[in-house]
Amino acid sequence: MAFVQIRAAREGDCGDILRLIRELAEFEKLSDQVKISEEVLRADGFGENPFYHCFVAEIIPAPGERQGPCIVGYGLYYFIYSTWKGRNIYLEDIYVMPEYRGQGIGSKIIKKVAEVALDQGCSQFRLEVLEWNKKAMDLYKALGAQDVTQAEGWHAFRFEGEAMRKLAGR
Amino acid sequence: MAFVQIRAAREGDCGDILRLIRELAEFEKLSDQVKISEEVLRADGFGENPFYHCFVAEIIPAPGERQGPCIVGYGLYYFIYSTWKGRNIYLEDIYVMPEYRGQGIGSKIIKKVAEVALDQGCSQFRLEVLEWNKKAMDLYKALGAQDVTQAEGWHAFRFEGEAMRKLAGR
Repeated sequence: MAFVQIRAAREGDCGDILRLIRELAEFEKLSDQVKISEEVLRADGFGENPFYHCFVAEIIPAPGERQGPCIVGYGLYYFIYSTWKGRNIYLEDIYVMPEYRGQGIGSKIIKKVAEVALDQGCSQFRLEVLEWNKKAMDLYKALGAQDVTQAEGWHAFRFEGEAMRKLAGR
Repeated sequence: MAFVQIRAAREGDCGDILRLIRELAEFEKLSDQVKISEEVLRADGFGENPFYHCFVAEIIPAPGERQGPCIVGYGLYYFIYSTWKGRNIYLEDIYVMPEYRGQGIGSKIIKKVAEVALDQGCSQFRLEVLEWNKKAMDLYKALGAQDVTQAEGWHAFRFEGEAMRKLAGR
């Protein structure tokens, strides 16, 4: 029988990762915002000082099955810094293709990120989720996460393009 | 007359930065969460691969004034990674001592961060703010930031200590 392996992404996975980044943005109804390319993902994630790290979920076919391995999910994270607690992890994206949900693949990716966090001496990891994505919210809560927007009132703010240029006087 | 200089933090500023980190956490009513020390701030911010970067606001006394320079604000940031737009900046903390507010010091710090973001090819920078901190929210909006929790419904989630250990099976 086929099984699912969660492993660190390799440079050659960037095409698949980009395919899933686009699927996730479509699911989030924000796909017009995806400007990244496979080349940029390769350069930024697999150089000497990578800007991000990534796990992929890969279906490994049973011996004799005709199709090859297939990447069906990913979790992309990087290190951040809390002035209260020091080095931490931010899970920027987590996604599993719809037809592979309900098998615990998302939880396995989150578990891997928790292992990295502990191995690296981090005391927390953060992520963001859209409030209408109740299934994801319920999963994260079931796994022990706290919704700090609800509990403490944190709002996310972003400065983008034109506002940044204006600020910098350019 | 004394004037305010915004400059990159030096290792010797970490004592002052920690003093301001504690003041900010007290203002946010979350001071029990500060676990960091001056030693950790020195090691993490001023090694070969710093985990964070920081600007400080320093009052430079006029010639003849008796008191020395004094750090009255800071903005601490690091690089993050958007799968939509590539490398970006997160402004983890921004703080100005109450008696020095209303002089545009916070805006000057944000302007410096915007300059770094543009110089480094970032297309955005993010921050989080507590919803009862209307003054800060109004300032960020006036400077061109968007509240994406309000506009798009993003909620911040955190996995901490016990939940992470449970996830990692430890």
